[in-house]
Amino acid sequence: MNVVLLSNGIIPGKNKVMEYGLETIRKVVEKTGARKFVLVPYAVIRASHDDRVAAVQETLSELGCEVIGLHRCEDPVTAIEQADGIIVSGGNTWVLNKTLHDLGLINVIRKAVITHNKPYIGWSAGANIACPTIRTTNDMPIITSVVMNSLNLVPFQINPHYIEASPAGHNGETRDQRIEEFLAVNRHEVVAGIPEGTLFHIDGETLNFISANGKSMKLFRHEVAAEVFQEDDNVQFLMDQ
Amino acid sequence: MNVVLLSNGIIPGKNKVMEYGLETIRKVVEKTGARKFVLVPYAVIRASHDDRVAAVQETLSELGCEVIGLHRCEDPVTAIEQADGIIVSGGNTWVLNKTLHDLGLINVIRKAVITHNKPYIGWSAGANIACPTIRTTNDMPIITSVVMNSLNLVPFQINPHYIEASPAGHNGETRDQRIEEFLAVNRHEVVAGIPEGTLFHIDGETLNFISANGKSMKLFRHEVAAEVFQEDDNVQFLMDQ
Repeated sequence: MNVVLLSNGIIPGKNKVMEYGLETIRKVVEKTGARKFVLVPYAVIRASHDDRVAAVQETLSELGCEVIGLHRCEDPVTAIEQADGIIVSGGNTWVLNKTLHDLGLINVIRKAVITHNKPYIGWSAGANIACPTIRTTNDMPIITSVVMNSLNLVPFQINPHYIEASPAGHNGETRDQRIEEFLAVNRHEVVAGIPEGTLFHIDGETLNFISANGKSMKLFRHEVAAEVFQEDDNVQFLMDQ
Repeated sequence: MNVVLLSNGIIPGKNKVMEYGLETIRKVVEKTGARKFVLVPYAVIRASHDDRVAAVQETLSELGCEVIGLHRCEDPVTAIEQADGIIVSGGNTWVLNKTLHDLGLINVIRKAVITHNKPYIGWSAGANIACPTIRTTNDMPIITSVVMNSLNLVPFQINPHYIEASPAGHNGETRDQRIEEFLAVNRHEVVAGIPEGTLFHIDGETLNFISANGKSMKLFRHEVAAEVFQEDDNVQFLMDQ
């Protein structure tokens, strides 16, 4: 596999979307020779899909890559099959995952990534749907939807935009407490909280954690103290859950 | 109806659960003569259900009320029918709503509240499920569940723990943006964001917004600037959505 899963799109000081992950994406592009990418924009609710394509094109132009919007393709299945690689935008995970199911794209993307080794690059909601399910999203369920299976490219759950802090004086559950609730109900799963500015790179069978800003990944299991991992720490065991 | 919907359980300076809403709850108890309450604890994941009952009992002892846990009752349907009123604890909205459906309690509670005018008091997840659906919850979907209808005691959506602020440097969507997404998809609905320390009181047909800390309610509609309401402002129109 050639998969890059980013916590979020933009971090302070890096104004282009996924700019903080560009060196990892460059490695993937060089390794695979992928040039023509389709962008899956269905998570985008508050902006235009075309604008999102343009923003990603701006980032990938530096690597000589072309980006087209899947919403502009007459047949999305064929578009995925003919593309060299797939990019999935952040936004609302519920709308994204439901749309992929409605359009029959879940297995098409899985096949492209797993069988044909096409690059998959996703941030935020695009990272959520690379997990077995979308049960660790932070989004509101703005549509009525079964919590459906997602792409299952990696065998563990990711919590993108992971953050320890809460606004001062706020008594709502912290993210750590919400993840603890997930694990109390799903005791044999693990959740990797990846802060903004960090990403996972799956290169073949090898999993790497990369941090553009020194922030660390926090790994949660039921009734075990959370473990902290820095860039270049060995996190390979996560692929064997 | 005699309904009290609180944003959250505990606020700074008020250490008992729902203490900041006690004067409103006192009015409801005095009006209805309710003494024996059942607590619905199914949203509680990280604490014991019995401890939650004890905490609510501590608050309501001041009003001469008795609180029993629904999880201790042999027949939950009969327990609801025999109680004078219903209290629903915060926690995980998904687990709560699914459990009420699984136990066949949705219509039992609706009937108790709407037909028999029994008091309904809910905070956080307990306020979410008083809405038509749970699509404006802030929780993770830690179980696989259809986004089911909920109690529909009020005809609008509530976002409990509503907050404008985000942690410094965090680029994840703000709550306002998440609500904007909800409204982009659900254009004819309204969402009332109620900050911690505030509550709705439905007394018969009359809706009141009450704030224990001076914080205001923010009302969101699709493509309309959010409106701000203070305690005692007229919010009756919300009952006619």
